[in-house]
Amino acid sequence: MSEFDDAIRTIRTGDTAQGTLGDGWVVGGGINGGLLMALALGALREPMVETGAGPDVLTWSAHFLSASTPGPVLASTMVLRVGRSIASGQVSLHQEGQERLRVVASFTDLAERASVVHRSQPLPDLPPPQECVPARREAGGLSEKIAILDRFDLRLDPACAGFGIGRPSGAGELRGWLRLADGREPDVLALTCFVDSFPPVTFDLGAFGWAPTIELTGHVRSRPAPGWVAVRISTSNVIGGFFEEDCVLWDSTGAVVAQSRQLAGVRMPESA
Amino acid sequence: MSEFDDAIRTIRTGDTAQGTLGDGWVVGGGINGGLLMALALGALREPMVETGAGPDVLTWSAHFLSASTPGPVLASTMVLRVGRSIASGQVSLHQEGQERLRVVASFTDLAERASVVHRSQPLPDLPPPQECVPARREAGGLSEKIAILDRFDLRLDPACAGFGIGRPSGAGELRGWLRLADGREPDVLALTCFVDSFPPVTFDLGAFGWAPTIELTGHVRSRPAPGWVAVRISTSNVIGGFFEEDCVLWDSTGAVVAQSRQLAGVRMPESA
Repeated sequence: MSEFDDAIRTIRTGDTAQGTLGDGWVVGGGINGGLLMALALGALREPMVETGAGPDVLTWSAHFLSASTPGPVLASTMVLRVGRSIASGQVSLHQEGQERLRVVASFTDLAERASVVHRSQPLPDLPPPQECVPARREAGGLSEKIAILDRFDLRLDPACAGFGIGRPSGAGELRGWLRLADGREPDVLALTCFVDSFPPVTFDLGAFGWAPTIELTGHVRSRPAPGWVAVRISTSNVIGGFFEEDCVLWDSTGAVVAQSRQLAGVRMPESA
Repeated sequence: MSEFDDAIRTIRTGDTAQGTLGDGWVVGGGINGGLLMALALGALREPMVETGAGPDVLTWSAHFLSASTPGPVLASTMVLRVGRSIASGQVSLHQEGQERLRVVASFTDLAERASVVHRSQPLPDLPPPQECVPARREAGGLSEKIAILDRFDLRLDPACAGFGIGRPSGAGELRGWLRLADGREPDVLALTCFVDSFPPVTFDLGAFGWAPTIELTGHVRSRPAPGWVAVRISTSNVIGGFFEEDCVLWDSTGAVVAQSRQLAGVRMPESA
């Protein structure tokens, strides 16, 4: 069992499932949003598969309602609709009676889908992982409290890694590679975590504060092949204290495997 | 009262509200998704404002569960969380006991927000409305059953209007202008309709079938000024029978006022 599988594992009793949020997935003020989404969608998968739906998340919308903390978590699931090839459901995460996260999602069988690609975003021009800058946790630095850096092997394209030494590019884009530190290969649930595992794109704009996600919606476009996942996150609109962060994930064959957009809050530095 | 206000009006009794879906908003197999979202979010607004939240939709995720038909519709609302400046809620639309649409949304006061724009997508290079191609309903044509064409004044940039004469550009992008036909000025609720009021972007790829929306998530970034709204919809990934449609709306001052992404189904022609 990998530490990721361990972290998202839940024990189901009917429409509820019990899990535990580990210290190792803390980032800033709470548990990493990617891990929460993967745990929630993992808890929803079995009830969805029981309806006859496929096992793959196709689309999910996650609304972050309050900050999660390490400790027990309860997932409540609900089947909303069972269609011919797509089923929809809802899952809520609660801690101490407070709702943390509400997710509405659709499941399908992505393997059954004709894998015909009419158009897709090309993999960005990116140096190979061994020529990228590893994002590691360092004692005494800003990264010390970002426990999740130990869970991933995260490599940044040097062209956008300047924020680490106080020189953000200002382009509003981060690119790089991601895989789980324990070597577990990516699958659909890992993708639902990966879309929210990079540092906030606003780091590249010189805003180094925590960027709380209000809502994140993602689409899984294909099951990923084993290996590194390429990641690009970007923002085009930073308005009135909110920004959108768009994420695209490509697997090691260069296929688009997932995309997401989140709206998050940001406090921009005066000079930006 | 405008026909749009009339169409989204609901009569509230506690946590439910009753409305009517009019024939005039039919498109393809059902009621236009934009109208449904505006009606649902309109029904949620009053319960949200009562919590002390602002009156503006900030972000919403809409999952389309079954096809709506003209006739009575019931909206059930629920407050999920009340924060310092943002409140979240849920609204479901039902017809004849069947859930049509489930929306989770956040509300805030967009006027209170510092209107500081750090970056935003520039208005695309677009001929003025009077030099664009009006999308009108024509007897005997494909557009005859698209009743909503009478509800909008919709103008397409001639550069991407080729699909109307069987010559789609193949770029995967439609641009143009939109306003309500009765002259009612845009507001936040109208924007939640406008993001799903253009023809499917797949028309520009030669796929002229109905493109059923699975899920649509939108963000309102600013209250719109009066006048025409500029619209750009585009798609970058058409994979295994699904495509994403990204929409950006600008108001008459050139400000980004809303953006959305939907995942929808498409049957591509063999030749594409």
